[in-house]
Amino acid sequence: MLTIEELSVFCKKKGFVFPSTEIYGGMTGFFDYGPLGVELKNNLKSSWWKTFVSTREDVQGIDGTNISSGKIWEASGHLANFTDVLVQCKKCGKNQRADNLVEDVLKINVDGLNAEALSKIIQDNTIKCPECKGEFGEAKNFNLMFPVQLGAETTKDSTAFLRGETAQLIFANYKNIVDSGRVKLPFGIAQIGKAFRNEIAPRNFLFRQREFEQMELEFFVRPEDKKCPLLEKRQLELEFLFLSEKDQDAKQEHNKVKVSDLLAQGLLTEWHAYWLAESYLWFTELGVRKEHLRIRQHIKKELSHYSSATFDVEYKFAFGWKEIHGNANRGQFDLTQHQKFSGKSMEIFDEETKSKILPAVIEPSFGVDRAFLTLIADAYHDDKERGNIVLKLSPKIAPVQVGVFPLVNKLDEKTREVFNSLRKEFVCQFDRSGSIGRRYARADEIGIPFCVTVDFDTLNDHCVTVRDRDTTKQERVRIVDLKQYLTLRFGY
Amino acid sequence: MLTIEELSVFCKKKGFVFPSTEIYGGMTGFFDYGPLGVELKNNLKSSWWKTFVSTREDVQGIDGTNISSGKIWEASGHLANFTDVLVQCKKCGKNQRADNLVEDVLKINVDGLNAEALSKIIQDNTIKCPECKGEFGEAKNFNLMFPVQLGAETTKDSTAFLRGETAQLIFANYKNIVDSGRVKLPFGIAQIGKAFRNEIAPRNFLFRQREFEQMELEFFVRPEDKKCPLLEKRQLELEFLFLSEKDQDAKQEHNKVKVSDLLAQGLLTEWHAYWLAESYLWFTELGVRKEHLRIRQHIKKELSHYSSATFDVEYKFAFGWKEIHGNANRGQFDLTQHQKFSGKSMEIFDEETKSKILPAVIEPSFGVDRAFLTLIADAYHDDKERGNIVLKLSPKIAPVQVGVFPLVNKLDEKTREVFNSLRKEFVCQFDRSGSIGRRYARADEIGIPFCVTVDFDTLNDHCVTVRDRDTTKQERVRIVDLKQYLTLRFGY
Repeated sequence: MLTIEELSVFCKKKGFVFPSTEIYGGMTGFFDYGPLGVELKNNLKSSWWKTFVSTREDVQGIDGTNISSGKIWEASGHLANFTDVLVQCKKCGKNQRADNLVEDVLKINVDGLNAEALSKIIQDNTIKCPECKGEFGEAKNFNLMFPVQLGAETTKDSTAFLRGETAQLIFANYKNIVDSGRVKLPFGIAQIGKAFRNEIAPRNFLFRQREFEQMELEFFVRPEDKKCPLLEKRQLELEFLFLSEKDQDAKQEHNKVKVSDLLAQGLLTEWHAYWLAESYLWFTELGVRKEHLRIRQHIKKELSHYSSATFDVEYKFAFGWKEIHGNANRGQFDLTQHQKFSGKSMEIFDEETKSKILPAVIEPSFGVDRAFLTLIADAYHDDKERGNIVLKLSPKIAPVQVGVFPLVNKLDEKTREVFNSLRKEFVCQFDRSGSIGRRYARADEIGIPFCVTVDFDTLNDHCVTVRDRDTTKQERVRIVDLKQYLTLRFGY
Repeated sequence: MLTIEELSVFCKKKGFVFPSTEIYGGMTGFFDYGPLGVELKNNLKSSWWKTFVSTREDVQGIDGTNISSGKIWEASGHLANFTDVLVQCKKCGKNQRADNLVEDVLKINVDGLNAEALSKIIQDNTIKCPECKGEFGEAKNFNLMFPVQLGAETTKDSTAFLRGETAQLIFANYKNIVDSGRVKLPFGIAQIGKAFRNEIAPRNFLFRQREFEQMELEFFVRPEDKKCPLLEKRQLELEFLFLSEKDQDAKQEHNKVKVSDLLAQGLLTEWHAYWLAESYLWFTELGVRKEHLRIRQHIKKELSHYSSATFDVEYKFAFGWKEIHGNANRGQFDLTQHQKFSGKSMEIFDEETKSKILPAVIEPSFGVDRAFLTLIADAYHDDKERGNIVLKLSPKIAPVQVGVFPLVNKLDEKTREVFNSLRKEFVCQFDRSGSIGRRYARADEIGIPFCVTVDFDTLNDHCVTVRDRDTTKQERVRIVDLKQYLTLRFGY
């Protein structure tokens, strides 16, 4: 399996992702998407939006600001609780994340331990600064929110914050959406957008950045509703690798289970199960292999301050099983907090029960960059037989859909005709440089699902050769049928 | 014409745009997009991306970070030059933009005047604080960039900035794109994304915000190239209202001219003319009325520090003709600066002239929010005869494409069938509440181009009624033909 460093080198070389500001020495924890990366990212975002928002009648979208009022983050608990524990070396002055330090040195899991507990471990084990062997001071909490000063005068109200998650902008707009729309329970509000965290130790390429993008859905249900009418065979019989809290306590491996098993064990509510299944399925429907995915139940002490139950979808990266999706039962926490802090009622009149209700929330939360990383990592194949990389991205999201090649340059004109006939429907790339074999290899490396070659026979038989990226099989297709042929192959 | 305040009320009521953080009293200069707004915004962004990036062979996209290194902004000149002039009242302490103050009080145009000149005008005319009648201190420059502290320690390098424009991220990535791709001159790099400016006087709803979104294209050409081979009849014969520098000096009105006239007068280069025409045409092709658009040449003293010639596309808002698009000839300014500050060559080997070239840049720059505001303002019609608002958005970007209604509730099942047959291809809204007339009115108000009604006859003749938003004409269409009928009407 490719290491994360090798993957980042590949992404840079092919124009998927560049280290931000590289000409000035780079910026730790920041990456820019290049020409192919931005197309792949846009495709995965629009696949998500289509799946979770625009083709659903019960979900609407919003797009809130990145700079947001401190009052939101006070209410949400982020200003108090959204912290990492830091220790500073007394000798060299360098700050480190206490949990990373302890895990690196002692190889133990310290999820959920607070500053005091971590300080004690560091002292008890006389852990020294890895840089200068100096002694560490007391561990303390470090808030991850980025403050921003608005206006020319610095006052108490002039401090705003880059949002630490997109979710809070949904809660802050909840009342306006309910008032302006004609929503009825259950319903969801979704958002795609940037979030910012002042990570002390950004690492693993796109995995932990200081600026990243989220796709979040807050789904509002009646708190008393035990039944989810949308739950059917598709979700109930979904089978996946699962690591329960119990298994983690007992240091056991994950098992293969079904959603219906989790429900039978009472590990989550029906609505929670529905959204967990839908979220998992989004990844597999984009081609991510099931054997590289698992669902992990959060253990009690690692639960976020707002969650009563969380399940992560994890992907098996070269650096371990890591969270690529979090699915939390936030209950009434957020609406209660915003109700309290804003003094405005967040209750909604429920036509069905003829009562006013403060909804409970299930939150499927995705990281755009982590989804991107997952898709690239899972698609990457070093095909020894072919002698080149093949990026087996799902045709649904491949950044370039069709390569169009003249066998030799003198066939340019005919090839242009074919190219022009396709480019309104498909993202096409015209490539005339190098041997056909070299061009196929280049197309494989950036994941172009189909290549169309115009050769001398084309001038007589009005057919072209279509080559399939994954099988390398070639088919002869009439130009008049080409658009329909490709449409079918793309599964539109 | 609707005032900007009335437009903002309409946008809130219909769920297009909400004041950000309204439940906590709002935040000056920040707005959130609601359910309909986000769809309209996404549609206009994807129309732009399709027009300027994905259907062009000579333009590629990127997506850079919002938080960016101070070194970029030092090189670009923003840390030195990207300022507004402020004056502070000695009595109440309130800061004001000096140019706005002078313009409001003396009704004169002060574009391009510096702090010293504005100070002199304020003193010579003894302009007092509008709030408390106090005296003003000296005017001084105020930088609009938002600083952000990275990491736990504050050092010289720990200060980064929220980007003041997307363009610089293109220049900062230029070298990586040239090295990883196989670009040849002329070529463009485009980006859609947020930009941030610490405006002292955000105003006019979406028009001047502290956080906004840009769609920018940097197009790199050989500096010596006098000819633009892409310039043809479509651009040359484009006719529009034009306000030249000379007209402004002479206090004249705008005139009707053609692109070819501007070229004949030597006001701009061929490449600049090409991109100015393409940019103007993007607006008219989305249905913005030509009589509400004009092109204005920047007068010398208002030119940005990087530009040798700039033309704005302006829209006739209720608060005056205002810039909705800027088209600047940035020449070699930015690449020269980044070459100097980074110490890395920005030259590119030009296959055609067999020489190394530092390209010159034409920059078409669009504000997403201003385009949004333009589209809504131009589409808004108060139809007295119908007795409701009609939002005549182009079907290409309407947030909801098809409304599907049962005439009465007992026709729900048949209507669902029709609805389900359409929703894979079109964004559909099922609406069963209120009279058909009320539902048509509601559809008009949010700009749904076509409404499909299922009535009792449908059960026998298998036809539905399709109603056109703009003409209110109704046509009877067979359900089996409906998808094709709508596809044609949408002009796909």
